[in-house]
Amino acid sequence: MNRRDVLFAMGGSCTALAGCGGGGGSSPTQAPEPPPPVDPGDPRAAWAATAQSLIPTLIETEQRPIDIVRAVADPSLPLRFRMEREATADLLNTYTFGKGESFILDFGGHRAGFLSFELQTVGRAPDAPARLRLTFGEVPTDVAEPLYPYNGRLSQGWLPDEVINVDDLPQAVRLPRRYAFRYVKVEVIDTSGEFRLRFENVKAHAITSAATAVAPLVADAEMLRRIDEVAVATLRDCMQTTFEDGPRRDRRLWLGDLRLQGLANYATFRQNDLVKRCLYLFASLSREDGFVAACVYEKPVPRYGEAHIIDYAALFNVTLLDYLVATGDTATARDLWPVAKRQLEIIAQGIDANGLYRDPGNVWIFIDWSDPLDRNAAIQGLLIYAYRQTLDLARRIGTEGEVSGYQARIDVMTAAARQTYWDDAQGVAVSGASRQVSWASQVWLTLGGVLSPTESERALTTALDSPTAVRPTTPYLYHYVIEALLAAGLNARARQLLESYWGGMVAAGADTFWELYDPAQPLSANYGDIHATSYCHAWSCTPSYFLRRGLLQG
Amino acid sequence: MNRRDVLFAMGGSCTALAGCGGGGGSSPTQAPEPPPPVDPGDPRAAWAATAQSLIPTLIETEQRPIDIVRAVADPSLPLRFRMEREATADLLNTYTFGKGESFILDFGGHRAGFLSFELQTVGRAPDAPARLRLTFGEVPTDVAEPLYPYNGRLSQGWLPDEVINVDDLPQAVRLPRRYAFRYVKVEVIDTSGEFRLRFENVKAHAITSAATAVAPLVADAEMLRRIDEVAVATLRDCMQTTFEDGPRRDRRLWLGDLRLQGLANYATFRQNDLVKRCLYLFASLSREDGFVAACVYEKPVPRYGEAHIIDYAALFNVTLLDYLVATGDTATARDLWPVAKRQLEIIAQGIDANGLYRDPGNVWIFIDWSDPLDRNAAIQGLLIYAYRQTLDLARRIGTEGEVSGYQARIDVMTAAARQTYWDDAQGVAVSGASRQVSWASQVWLTLGGVLSPTESERALTTALDSPTAVRPTTPYLYHYVIEALLAAGLNARARQLLESYWGGMVAAGADTFWELYDPAQPLSANYGDIHATSYCHAWSCTPSYFLRRGLLQG
Repeated sequence: MNRRDVLFAMGGSCTALAGCGGGGGSSPTQAPEPPPPVDPGDPRAAWAATAQSLIPTLIETEQRPIDIVRAVADPSLPLRFRMEREATADLLNTYTFGKGESFILDFGGHRAGFLSFELQTVGRAPDAPARLRLTFGEVPTDVAEPLYPYNGRLSQGWLPDEVINVDDLPQAVRLPRRYAFRYVKVEVIDTSGEFRLRFENVKAHAITSAATAVAPLVADAEMLRRIDEVAVATLRDCMQTTFEDGPRRDRRLWLGDLRLQGLANYATFRQNDLVKRCLYLFASLSREDGFVAACVYEKPVPRYGEAHIIDYAALFNVTLLDYLVATGDTATARDLWPVAKRQLEIIAQGIDANGLYRDPGNVWIFIDWSDPLDRNAAIQGLLIYAYRQTLDLARRIGTEGEVSGYQARIDVMTAAARQTYWDDAQGVAVSGASRQVSWASQVWLTLGGVLSPTESERALTTALDSPTAVRPTTPYLYHYVIEALLAAGLNARARQLLESYWGGMVAAGADTFWELYDPAQPLSANYGDIHATSYCHAWSCTPSYFLRRGLLQG
Repeated sequence: MNRRDVLFAMGGSCTALAGCGGGGGSSPTQAPEPPPPVDPGDPRAAWAATAQSLIPTLIETEQRPIDIVRAVADPSLPLRFRMEREATADLLNTYTFGKGESFILDFGGHRAGFLSFELQTVGRAPDAPARLRLTFGEVPTDVAEPLYPYNGRLSQGWLPDEVINVDDLPQAVRLPRRYAFRYVKVEVIDTSGEFRLRFENVKAHAITSAATAVAPLVADAEMLRRIDEVAVATLRDCMQTTFEDGPRRDRRLWLGDLRLQGLANYATFRQNDLVKRCLYLFASLSREDGFVAACVYEKPVPRYGEAHIIDYAALFNVTLLDYLVATGDTATARDLWPVAKRQLEIIAQGIDANGLYRDPGNVWIFIDWSDPLDRNAAIQGLLIYAYRQTLDLARRIGTEGEVSGYQARIDVMTAAARQTYWDDAQGVAVSGASRQVSWASQVWLTLGGVLSPTESERALTTALDSPTAVRPTTPYLYHYVIEALLAAGLNARARQLLESYWGGMVAAGADTFWELYDPAQPLSANYGDIHATSYCHAWSCTPSYFLRRGLLQG
C-alpha cells in the first residue's frame, strides 16, 4: 500500500479532464473546473479566516558550515556511508575549484532553510558563466552516491539537487528554494579554462516557526537524551507556516502526522496556535459534506487535499481533544465541535448493524505503510478509540447531549470487535480471512479499550515476541505501539522499544528522525528509491512527548 | 587561432594564484590581488564617471509566441532542420503535458529577454514539484537536437538550457536569467502521476536599449530589405547597457565589434550616447600604461578585460573618429584624444625603423578567426589606416600639432608595405614566408591606402576570384571586404558579395546574423560545438550601414 497507489485507486473521476491517464503525446483538454467557492454563510469561510489569522512568523537563523567532509563507503553502517572530515569549513576560502571538482560541506545537524554564498574567482578574468550542481543531503547517502538514474515512483522534482548558472562573477548567490539538509555537495560542472571558483561566506539560513527555546531533556541515559534532541530537531524543522510532514517531502500538512506533532509540541515548543491554525485549515478545507481531507496544501493558496483517510479523519477529533487538554481553549473546541461530530457521522455509514466497520473497498485506511497488514481489526479499534475520545471531548465542552448514542455505539462496536477479532485461545487479536496476527491489531484494540488490561498485556507481548507477526514499518505506527504498551502497563517494554527503534536511527547517524525505518531493512524505500525518502519526518518526533511527560517511567 | 587559445598564449602570469593550471583536485590558494584602485587624479576616474552617467534605460516589450512548432530534419538546409507549425500558439492552453513530453514555441523572430509563464495543472491535486528543462534557441539546431554530450571548449554554462523546479502549483514563473531566443523548448522532466501541466500566458519580455523606431529600408530588392531587417534586429538585440557582441555569448563589449556596431547604429537607431558610453568604458578600463583592452566586462561592476588585440586598440581611434563625424561631439573627441594618441604610441613600439610592424609573437592580432591566415600584411595595412584616421581626427579637433610625425610615419609604413607585401607581377599582396594570398591582405592594404585604386581593384578581384586565397570566416572581416571593395570602386561586386554572404544566412533562416558563417561549411564552429555559437552577433550587422548610407550604389 502506498499513498499514490491508493490515490489512484480512489480515482477522482477524470472524465472531463484530458491527460489523467498519462501516456505519450500532448493532448487537448478542457479547462479544469474551478473549485466551488465557499458560501460566506458556510462556517468554513470563518474557519479559513481564523486559519489565515494564525500564520506564524518564520524565524531565520544564519548558520556556518562546520566541516568540509568526504563520504567514505562503510558497509557496516545502515546507510552505507560515513563522513570523514577533510578540513574545517573555515578553510574553504583557501580552496579553489575547477571543472569537474566538488566538495561537501557539513553544517553539523539538520535544518530546513536556504543556502547563500559568495562566488569568487581566481585566475584570469571570469569570462563565462559558472554552472554548478548543488545537492542537499539530509543523510550521507543523499550526497555520497549519484541520485541518477532515479528509480522512484514520485516526481524527480523531489530530488534535492539543483543546477544553477551564475552569469556575472564575482556574485553573491542565494538559492530561492528552501531545502532540508545537513550536507551540501557542490559540483562545478564548468567554468572556463580562465578561472577557478572560490566559495566564500557560505551560510545556511535555517527557517522555522518554532520560536521558543526548548531546554535539553534531563535524562540518566545519554541515548534517551539524544533521542529527545533528535526528536525536537525533527519537530522544529517541520514547524513552518503549518506542521509539515517533512520539510523535504512532501511539505504538506497531514492529519495523522498533525496529531503526533501536536503531542510533541505540547511537551516542547508549545506553539499551540500553530496546532490551532492547522485544525482550522482542515476544518475550512473539507469535502462538501464536511469530511476532512487526509492532507491539505498550503501554497500557493490553501487547498483541499482531495484524498481522504478514514483513520486520519477520526483522529481529527482526537487531535482537537489533545489541543483542548493542552490549552484549555474551550472556544476553539466548541467552534470546531461540529467538524468532529461530522467525521463520525460520515464514518458511521461504514459501520454495520452488528457494530463492525466494514471496509467498503474504495476508501483509504492507513494505519501504517505495511503492505501485508490486514487493517480490519486495527481500524475497528481505532474507531472505538476515536468514539471514546470524542465523547470525552463532548463532555468537556458540554455537548454530550448531541452524542447521546455514542456510549451504546462504543459498547456494540467493542462487543463486535471482541467477537470478530479476539482469539482467546491464542491470546491475540487476529484480522482478516487469514487470521493475521499483527502488532497493529493488538495496538488498536488495546487503545480502543476492547481488551482488558490483562488481555492487552498478553496480546501485545505475544505479537511483539512473535517472529511472524506483521510488524510496523513507520515511526508513525511505532508511536501507537508505545502508547499501547503504556496503556497495558508495559512501561519497561515501551522504554526498551523506544530505545531500540528510535535509538536505532540515532545509531545510524540520524540528526532528525525518518519517514520510514525498518531496523531489519534500513534501506527499504517506500517509493522505490531511497533518494526520495524524507529523513526528517515529524510523525517520528513523539519520543519527546513520551520522555518529557515522564510516561515511560514506572 | 582562437580567442581562448590566444588568451592562454598571452598568459597572464599565474605564479601567485593556484588553480591556473587546472587539473584535478582542489588546491589551497592565496587570495588574488585586488585590482589597483584608480587614482582620483587619473583621468580614468572621470572617464568612468562619464560612462556610468550614460547607462541607458532598458525597454521591456512583452511578446506572445506565434506558433507551436516541431523540428523536422532537412539535410538540404545549412542548419539541417526546418520548423513546421503544429498549431498556433494561442492553442497552447488547450494542451497538457506530462512526464517526458515536450513542446517548442516559436516567437517568430529573435530577441534578448526574459521568459515568463503561468504553470497550471490538470488532473488530481498537484502533489509534487514540477521539474522542467527549458532550452532557448536562436536557431532550430539549438532546440532540435540534444545539447549533450557537449564538445565545446567554452564553459558549458553558455549552453542555453536551464533546469527548474517549481514547488507550489499553480505558479507564475519568470526565469531570472536573460536569454537570446526565437524558440523555447519546454521539456517536462517530471510531474507526478497525479497531474499534468498546462502552460498559460507564456510571454517573452524582450529587452533592448534601442529606443528609437527604425523605418524599414526602402529597397528594390526584397533580399536587401530582408538583409537590412535582420541586421537591424541583430543590432537591436545586442544593444543593452553596452553594445554586447552577442546577447547569448559572450555578452561582452569588444572594441572591434563596437566599431561596426557604431557604424550601423548611426544609420539606424542613432543611440549615440551608447557609443559614447562604450568609448568611455574602454578609456576608463585600460591597462596601467593606457593601452585599451580588447574587451571590457560590465557586470557585476565594470572591469578591465585583461586581453589586448593590436588591431582592436588601433580601431579605438577609428571608432572615436566615426563617433565625432556622426555626432559632431567635439568635446568627447577632445576628452578622449589622449587615449587615441596613446594607442599608437604603444603600438608604434612594434614598428621597426623601416616602417614595418613586426609581430613580437606575444601579442594578439585578430583580423579574423581564420586559422591559416598570415596576418602580417593585414595588420600593416590596418595600422596605416588607423594612422590616417587618427590624423583626420586630430585635424578635426585641432590637435594635429601633437602628431606632426604621423604623415611621415604613414609614408614610411606605406613604402615598407609596398616593398614587403606587394607582388606587382601577380597583382596581389602576399604575406608571410609562404607568400600567402588572402582576402584580408588585399582588404587592409586597400583600406590603408597602400595600393593605388587600380592596384586595389586588381588585387581584390584576383583574391576574391582565387579558389586558393585564404578567405574570411567571420562577418566581421566580410565587413571590411565590403568596405575595401567600395574603396576600390567595385560597388557592384560589393553589393553582390553582401547579397550572397549575408543573404546566405537569410536563406538559411537567420533572424539575426551570426558570429560565424562560412558558406562552404555552415556548421563550422569556432569553439568545437555549434551549440556554443552565438547566432546574434553584432559584428555582422553592418549591411544596414552600407544599405542605408547608399554606399553600394553606383
